[in-house]
Amino acid sequence: MASATPTPAARRGRPGYDQEQMLEVIVKVFTDHGYDAATLELIAKRLGLSKSAVYHHFDSKSAMLELALEQVLGALEAVFTAPEAVTGLASERIEFVVNGAVRVACERQLALQLLLRLHGNSEVELKAMERRRGFDAKLKQLFELALTEGSLRADFDPGLAERFTFGLINSLVEWYRPGGRFTPEEIADAVLRFLRSGLTTP
Amino acid sequence: MASATPTPAARRGRPGYDQEQMLEVIVKVFTDHGYDAATLELIAKRLGLSKSAVYHHFDSKSAMLELALEQVLGALEAVFTAPEAVTGLASERIEFVVNGAVRVACERQLALQLLLRLHGNSEVELKAMERRRGFDAKLKQLFELALTEGSLRADFDPGLAERFTFGLINSLVEWYRPGGRFTPEEIADAVLRFLRSGLTTP
Repeated sequence: MASATPTPAARRGRPGYDQEQMLEVIVKVFTDHGYDAATLELIAKRLGLSKSAVYHHFDSKSAMLELALEQVLGALEAVFTAPEAVTGLASERIEFVVNGAVRVACERQLALQLLLRLHGNSEVELKAMERRRGFDAKLKQLFELALTEGSLRADFDPGLAERFTFGLINSLVEWYRPGGRFTPEEIADAVLRFLRSGLTTP
Repeated sequence: MASATPTPAARRGRPGYDQEQMLEVIVKVFTDHGYDAATLELIAKRLGLSKSAVYHHFDSKSAMLELALEQVLGALEAVFTAPEAVTGLASERIEFVVNGAVRVACERQLALQLLLRLHGNSEVELKAMERRRGFDAKLKQLFELALTEGSLRADFDPGLAERFTFGLINSLVEWYRPGGRFTPEEIADAVLRFLRSGLTTP
């Protein structure tokens, strides 16, 4: 795991990165080159630090990845375990979860891109992919519940509805720009409008 | 570019790959590790060939990438330039393009995944990303036309409709399994059903 000590670079008068800012640069290196191809040399160079200075903050490349992925996995976990996601009408819970997941995708765009492009070649990657599948399963359950509730059209498959919903949300990593034409709220509304072709009010 | 000479490996009694079969294995190596991290050593090992035997078929790693990407870019080009995509009602042209793009995504799943995960660190990658943006622009134009035609709901942004349509289609690289629960035709129907929340009959 990573240490929280102030950076020696800052003490030496270099740009005073804190760990979160360093992680932001590191995630960019990971998404620019792919995690496997992003060497510690590349990372240190982009940070303007020596390799040992980087190691002062992070135990390993794998620890960097774990922290970066936690930014998006933790945020999604918070959405899916919030009271609004676990009680009430399925259609309203779906609405809450879509709003939350769109917000996470917009706020943690690069970390989400990293998650979506994992190859599964290490323990950290496999665990993250497993957690991601957990969210898939939870959303699918909500659509199944909506079907029972009568708020999903009977001819719409809950599994397909889940795949499509995350397909729309995950596509945000490709084109969403903060301060661009659409706010996260407008995007969430548009996703929900799409979903309403299948979802009816109970 | 790559030569079409029969493989020396086949002559030596090794599995008689033709170039298309070799490319299939190579695309798998690219998607398993990321293009940048996929070394020629890895590729040769997975093919069970020597590096020089691999070079007998492909000039370079970059040539392999170009051929692999062509499988999906060429197929999409064929869809977007077909008569059914360039004349007639916008709503029908959209239907044709969605059907075609879903079929390409299902048939060329790994090559599409490769395209979607490019980092843009080489000329071949940048050209492929440019061609991909061309398809985005063409579909967006179709949605704009549908708006004029009165077959896209006036409150639905054509740009957003395009992003969402490719978001749904591109998500297939993650979960579509040949011979699984859904045929490409059923998936295309479901995408179109989603789209019909915004598209009305003129």
